[in-house]
Amino acid sequence: MTVNAGIIGATGAVGQRLIQFLDPHPDFEITALTASDASAGDTYREAAKWRISMPIPEDIAEMTVTETDPDAMPDDVDIVFSSLPSSVGEAVEPDFCEAGYVVSSNSSNGRTDPDVPLTIPEVNADHIGLLEVQRDERGWDGALVKNPNCSTITMVPPLAALDEAFGLEAVTVSTLQAVSGAGYSGVTSMEIIDNAIPHIGGEEKKMETESRKLLGAFDGAEVSWHDARVYASCNRIPTLDGHLENVWTDTEADATVADAKEACRAYSGADLPSSPDRLIHVFEEPDRPQPRLDRDRDNGMAIAVGGLQETEGGLQFNCLAHNTMRGAAGASVLNGELLLTEGYL
Amino acid sequence: MTVNAGIIGATGAVGQRLIQFLDPHPDFEITALTASDASAGDTYREAAKWRISMPIPEDIAEMTVTETDPDAMPDDVDIVFSSLPSSVGEAVEPDFCEAGYVVSSNSSNGRTDPDVPLTIPEVNADHIGLLEVQRDERGWDGALVKNPNCSTITMVPPLAALDEAFGLEAVTVSTLQAVSGAGYSGVTSMEIIDNAIPHIGGEEKKMETESRKLLGAFDGAEVSWHDARVYASCNRIPTLDGHLENVWTDTEADATVADAKEACRAYSGADLPSSPDRLIHVFEEPDRPQPRLDRDRDNGMAIAVGGLQETEGGLQFNCLAHNTMRGAAGASVLNGELLLTEGYL
Amino acid sequence: MTVNAGIIGATGAVGQRLIQFLDPHPDFEITALTASDASAGDTYREAAKWRISMPIPEDIAEMTVTETDPDAMPDDVDIVFSSLPSSVGEAVEPDFCEAGYVVSSNSSNGRTDPDVPLTIPEVNADHIGLLEVQRDERGWDGALVKNPNCSTITMVPPLAALDEAFGLEAVTVSTLQAVSGAGYSGVTSMEIIDNAIPHIGGEEKKMETESRKLLGAFDGAEVSWHDARVYASCNRIPTLDGHLENVWTDTEADATVADAKEACRAYSGADLPSSPDRLIHVFEEPDRPQPRLDRDRDNGMAIAVGGLQETEGGLQFNCLAHNTMRGAAGASVLNGELLLTEGYL
Amino acid sequence: MTVNAGIIGATGAVGQRLIQFLDPHPDFEITALTASDASAGDTYREAAKWRISMPIPEDIAEMTVTETDPDAMPDDVDIVFSSLPSSVGEAVEPDFCEAGYVVSSNSSNGRTDPDVPLTIPEVNADHIGLLEVQRDERGWDGALVKNPNCSTITMVPPLAALDEAFGLEAVTVSTLQAVSGAGYSGVTSMEIIDNAIPHIGGEEKKMETESRKLLGAFDGAEVSWHDARVYASCNRIPTLDGHLENVWTDTEADATVADAKEACRAYSGADLPSSPDRLIHVFEEPDRPQPRLDRDRDNGMAIAVGGLQETEGGLQFNCLAHNTMRGAAGASVLNGELLLTEGYL
Repeated sequence: MTVNAGIIGATGAVGQRLIQFLDPHPDFEITALTASDASAGDTYREAAKWRISMPIPEDIAEMTVTETDPDAMPDDVDIVFSSLPSSVGEAVEPDFCEAGYVVSSNSSNGRTDPDVPLTIPEVNADHIGLLEVQRDERGWDGALVKNPNCSTITMVPPLAALDEAFGLEAVTVSTLQAVSGAGYSGVTSMEIIDNAIPHIGGEEKKMETESRKLLGAFDGAEVSWHDARVYASCNRIPTLDGHLENVWTDTEADATVADAKEACRAYSGADLPSSPDRLIHVFEEPDRPQPRLDRDRDNGMAIAVGGLQETEGGLQFNCLAHNTMRGAAGASVLNGELLLTEGYL
Repeated sequence: MTVNAGIIGATGAVGQRLIQFLDPHPDFEITALTASDASAGDTYREAAKWRISMPIPEDIAEMTVTETDPDAMPDDVDIVFSSLPSSVGEAVEPDFCEAGYVVSSNSSNGRTDPDVPLTIPEVNADHIGLLEVQRDERGWDGALVKNPNCSTITMVPPLAALDEAFGLEAVTVSTLQAVSGAGYSGVTSMEIIDNAIPHIGGEEKKMETESRKLLGAFDGAEVSWHDARVYASCNRIPTLDGHLENVWTDTEADATVADAKEACRAYSGADLPSSPDRLIHVFEEPDRPQPRLDRDRDNGMAIAVGGLQETEGGLQFNCLAHNTMRGAAGASVLNGELLLTEGYL
Repeated sequence: MTVNAGIIGATGAVGQRLIQFLDPHPDFEITALTASDASAGDTYREAAKWRISMPIPEDIAEMTVTETDPDAMPDDVDIVFSSLPSSVGEAVEPDFCEAGYVVSSNSSNGRTDPDVPLTIPEVNADHIGLLEVQRDERGWDGALVKNPNCSTITMVPPLAALDEAFGLEAVTVSTLQAVSGAGYSGVTSMEIIDNAIPHIGGEEKKMETESRKLLGAFDGAEVSWHDARVYASCNRIPTLDGHLENVWTDTEADATVADAKEACRAYSGADLPSSPDRLIHVFEEPDRPQPRLDRDRDNGMAIAVGGLQETEGGLQFNCLAHNTMRGAAGASVLNGELLLTEGYL
Repeated sequence: MTVNAGIIGATGAVGQRLIQFLDPHPDFEITALTASDASAGDTYREAAKWRISMPIPEDIAEMTVTETDPDAMPDDVDIVFSSLPSSVGEAVEPDFCEAGYVVSSNSSNGRTDPDVPLTIPEVNADHIGLLEVQRDERGWDGALVKNPNCSTITMVPPLAALDEAFGLEAVTVSTLQAVSGAGYSGVTSMEIIDNAIPHIGGEEKKMETESRKLLGAFDGAEVSWHDARVYASCNRIPTLDGHLENVWTDTEADATVADAKEACRAYSGADLPSSPDRLIHVFEEPDRPQPRLDRDRDNGMAIAVGGLQETEGGLQFNCLAHNTMRGAAGASVLNGELLLTEGYL
């Protein structure tokens, strides 16, 4: 028995990845697609400029795109995956929740709201319990769950593993982010060929706040953010997919490279269809992970770690994830799978 | 009256930049070019695969390249600029010094030797005094002066300014380095298109040691290295020229952004022909400096700083320099100008 | 005595290049800048996202941008350089001409109109005489002169040289075009990194028609288009600037490589400030010209030719020009210089 | 029952693709790997710098690499796939054939020898009959079969379809070739970032001769080359994989776009494991095929055609194939499958 799924904001870079995940998915079936009003009434083939090398699935291509409005959604939709621009998400996601839809959203609005679960199922699945608080407070029949920003998702699993093993006091991170993170038209070719752009607006703040919420403890009523200091510097570089990050951590307990590798390798997977068998792949080669070579591991859902070294008081490492797979569409699908497992659908 | 200059290792990426600097130079005149034995006897045009968009100067193109040996050097050469691979530099630079040549070298061998001045004239010109120690110890008529690695040069001027203003305790740096830093054939296209490579071998160690020597104090007999902790993580990205770096510093005194900008802008220039009027250009725009837009400022000799922010206990900023101009060929030429000014030629 | 110049559409990729040409120009002085209504009232610094590595000239940066309307133009403007999108150009350029302005336009609208001179001063300066016909027919006090499309400009000078020498019967051309040809936001990074795009819409038709008009004869009343068949296939590739083109020609007379080189090298320059001393630079190296190495020759105004070979019945060669310098802004400035020389200003 | 296969020249860009094809192959089993003498004795993991995003198969990684010599080959090897540099191929391939091995080779040496079958199984499988001539003349127990150059393979299937339908008189082709075509170290990053390189040495000649041999008729004794004139201009661009080509043809019979599409779509596939169901995929979108979006279709084995237009006397179109899959490793594997089917193994 499959769950009917709608995708709101289906034509963008993440929307296309959602289709790539959901079309062959064992539990979900795509039954509704929405886009901007201008595209309403078009087939998906007409509305989307398909950019993935996998050909567009024929049945999806022929579906009619509707406007992004709960009233335009078929009644039989059980879950809505959202990859809207954050300003649009902020405006319409509450409408969908109010109308009774369970929304698994990749949009950045509301991620740090106290009653919105921000989850990576392998890391903090228990935060999903915030939905009880949310329903109490907002009076929704539906529900709103968020996944974090792609650059946050890349580093949080290894940070969580190290936090469990040694206790985190501080994190400093520098990112080398792919252009797809800004959406299909987010970075022009004239901006980025033979170039790099420091300071991606808003991204540094997201990494600093979201990671502390994700690593925080949920006591059944609220999430206490982790008190580690987090400093991020985010850079755009000329890669298509895959965010590479250099991370330094200060740890409470003395940390060795051997223990850190063990902690990463042993870190919990999740028994969900889209979660990789092993969440964190640890490289021994010092010049790995690399975006083009390592982003596609486990259908783009693995986190890769390399270059682990001890520093005075902590550890240094590099990590990488596919930003539109693990970092966006796959993250939302995983949250959808968690909602299904936990009985919210 | 001009000084006759030889270039050893003249055909590589840095050798070509040395020609770009020295051909129109008011004080130096190129009178000798060397390359590997295989090229000896060829014209420079034949020996070098010229890769700079400025056409190769005609008189240089017609010069005959000799082997890299002091015996093959014309007697009237007063200074030798070296951009040899470090293994070759280690083997032959001492021969040139023994034969009486003053060598300004970009090669990485010997940079941290106690009696070898490692200088950025605007930062630690006084270290040139180590040459007296060097001559005493090595019995050379010639002399050997080094400039640091390109990634080190990029960050040291702003670090020196901040050290003067606030006192440096720790430095963490992540680099986004251009492919030209690895030489003409150092990075293949299949390695780097749509990719980034973490951990440039040896580079991280260079940044950590060279910066502490450069920021150290010279007491007339030896250089006491600065005791700041320095951690570097070096990445190669698909840019042609210009290293961009994200830097975090812990400072002894409280540092404000306003004071830091003032310290950078006021930081000493040098009254040398190739030094820019203002050494450090501070950007107000948060998304600058960018390699392609900012590397060529002041003939590629300026250091650019942007994104200054306060952190708990310190400052965060980005910096950029043209790696084969300011970071290599221009650095050696500046050292040559310092040697001339200080009477070593 | 300088001529006051306005730039309409001053903030785009070509507009910025116009400023780069006109700011230091001996004969023109920029006194007005226009952009879209949304930017009217802003300083140029605010309105333009400056993308050239040369810093924006300070006096230009502080100028106030007005809307693109002849009524908003200061009275003392003598010539207007236009780099508007063609739909806007079509709507407003006639208004400027009617209001008495002489317009040198890079916009594609109207290029093949019978009474609009389409000129490359070194190739068909005499076509400027069409302005008499234009004024008669349109009753304008002003005038409208066009330069061709960047991909057309690249090949027409060598084609004109070969036509003079051997007579052209047919031309087949395949282009490798830089992203700047589509304007600042024309090609997204996700479209072009690790990719190439065939069939640039409209471009092939422009090359086929414009080249025949440029190579045509003007008899004082009208231009008879050249009757050579022209087939073009236009491709976008991941280069920033510089269009490279592979050309095959059928010629009436037998053509030798030696004669073709001589014809190209001897082909007329023009005695205008922005025209290079030698219009066509012929390379002997078979792997030249290359965009990055050769686009900047003579301030980006030279045409480069290489790879000349004989075929059965004709010749094959490669050519290259800087598309936003020689192919757009520089082309408009050259036409402005021609208008000045010919007494139209 | 599987056929034991050796790969000579197994560590390069094409060698790695051969492993990608042969490791999961239903009929072949990799039992021997060779490389340069320097790597002999190493495991494949040590000897090869694995560059494919698919992880290296574990069993292959642990195999020991031997030197490239028939005496070092295990006796049970039935077929040898060769991706050696042509100079090495020329020296050692005859030794393997003499020693009784059947060699399916991607190396360029000997492709136009009269007694060497040069085959694309879907196009000219009957040419394999040349092996009888070869064995008679050379006295080999083994055999040598070649596949053409990657740029040739891309255009020959549509040319063969059009030749069947309309008769070919002349072909003009301009290529936009990916860097992987030059091997792992063939194109440096400094050569190709923000650049394109015309005239790939030797490539143009290969396209002109190989295509005429492939399209020629085999009468049981020799291949009569097709008499169409073929002119090629080959360019390297900054793409990783996938050669895009602009082609113009003159045809004997009048050709319409509709008939040409039909001819391409209907063109014979081959009933071999690695051949796609439909050999030629015809796009209706004018801006397709594009390398990154279309190179991976049918496991990288499809040929894509787009932009079909009529010209005076012929047709114009674009085509694309994955150069290291369909154009190299996959081409050799297809020839191996043909040899198996035809009873040569």
